[in-house]
Amino acid sequence: MAWDTERTRTLLLAAAVNEFSNKGLAGGRVDQIAAAAGVNKERIYQYFGKKDALFDAVLAAQLTRSVAKLTIEGEGAAAVGEYAGRLFDLHVTEPTTARLLFWEGLEKGAESDVQPTRIDYATILIRTLQHALPGIDRDVAADLLITLVTLCSAWGVLPQLDAILAGPDADRTGPRREHIVRTATLLAESLHSGRATARTA
Amino acid sequence: MAWDTERTRTLLLAAAVNEFSNKGLAGGRVDQIAAAAGVNKERIYQYFGKKDALFDAVLAAQLTRSVAKLTIEGEGAAAVGEYAGRLFDLHVTEPTTARLLFWEGLEKGAESDVQPTRIDYATILIRTLQHALPGIDRDVAADLLITLVTLCSAWGVLPQLDAILAGPDADRTGPRREHIVRTATLLAESLHSGRATARTA
Repeated sequence: MAWDTERTRTLLLAAAVNEFSNKGLAGGRVDQIAAAAGVNKERIYQYFGKKDALFDAVLAAQLTRSVAKLTIEGEGAAAVGEYAGRLFDLHVTEPTTARLLFWEGLEKGAESDVQPTRIDYATILIRTLQHALPGIDRDVAADLLITLVTLCSAWGVLPQLDAILAGPDADRTGPRREHIVRTATLLAESLHSGRATARTA
Repeated sequence: MAWDTERTRTLLLAAAVNEFSNKGLAGGRVDQIAAAAGVNKERIYQYFGKKDALFDAVLAAQLTRSVAKLTIEGEGAAAVGEYAGRLFDLHVTEPTTARLLFWEGLEKGAESDVQPTRIDYATILIRTLQHALPGIDRDVAADLLITLVTLCSAWGVLPQLDAILAGPDADRTGPRREHIVRTATLLAESLHSGRATARTA
């Protein structure tokens, strides 16, 4: 019954993405997830363990399914800028991933039980940035990665910022994307060329 | 008894900052806040209204007390970079503010009942950025502000990112600050000089 098992897991993960991204780890309810998936609650414990472990599996699966598929096309600062633009697009079309990431940060923080696939993925991405910007060291690439992730993921989680700055009905997706691509390109260019922080009087 | 009223409000706000920044709006408990403040729960409803309104008051008070006191010193891109550095420092020393902001985004989102003081403060800050970088228009300054806020506030809320990238015990505060100052300075310089997105082949 391998097919049924796989199908049940997929249904459960989809329901869990929805429940956890809406309500977080503490607020998300396992019986709600089971009901939405049309699956007996016992299956969740059988396949994933406790609610906490289901949350971790959901976030890892969501990252693998989406963000991990993005690659940096080509080399140079512009390639990093374009990557940032596509990472931003992904968070716009699939807002659940960023929400899960921030729920994890707020509710589990540094104690997060990060699945090994996420560490592998981060390592690959850091190497890809080093490949795109030859000569930058690992720590610089890691810092660039944190900047891209925070820039691209935080905006969608803070819709109240746009409501404050531009009114509740304004769609600032386009300008935000442009601004992020510009920022990532400038930063990559600066890190790559190795010049010090630009300062104007 | 004006003094007592003021003192009770201060005690309640401090307890509420702690409770809401740890557990969020849905998870935060009014009776816990009352107990921690040593104040009768009825006082909370009397002074602030429902839990939701207390949350809004807490976040507005926290922003007024801290972030709103930061000013941009001088003019030019470097002044904006230094401002970003001090905004980052503030979020490092007072991590509750950023946590409250992200709880608000996740739990209330665009429906957040933003207090007028926050809109006033954002307006002032946008004008200050326009003053520091003469010639940039309001929308550009607003986009710059969103970039600074997301860059400076998101990192502390996502400690698991550092655990993934550098191991759980690494303190990356210094490099992160330097990176953010560099990013803000480059971006301000680029927006100010009005040149298009830098692109390298």
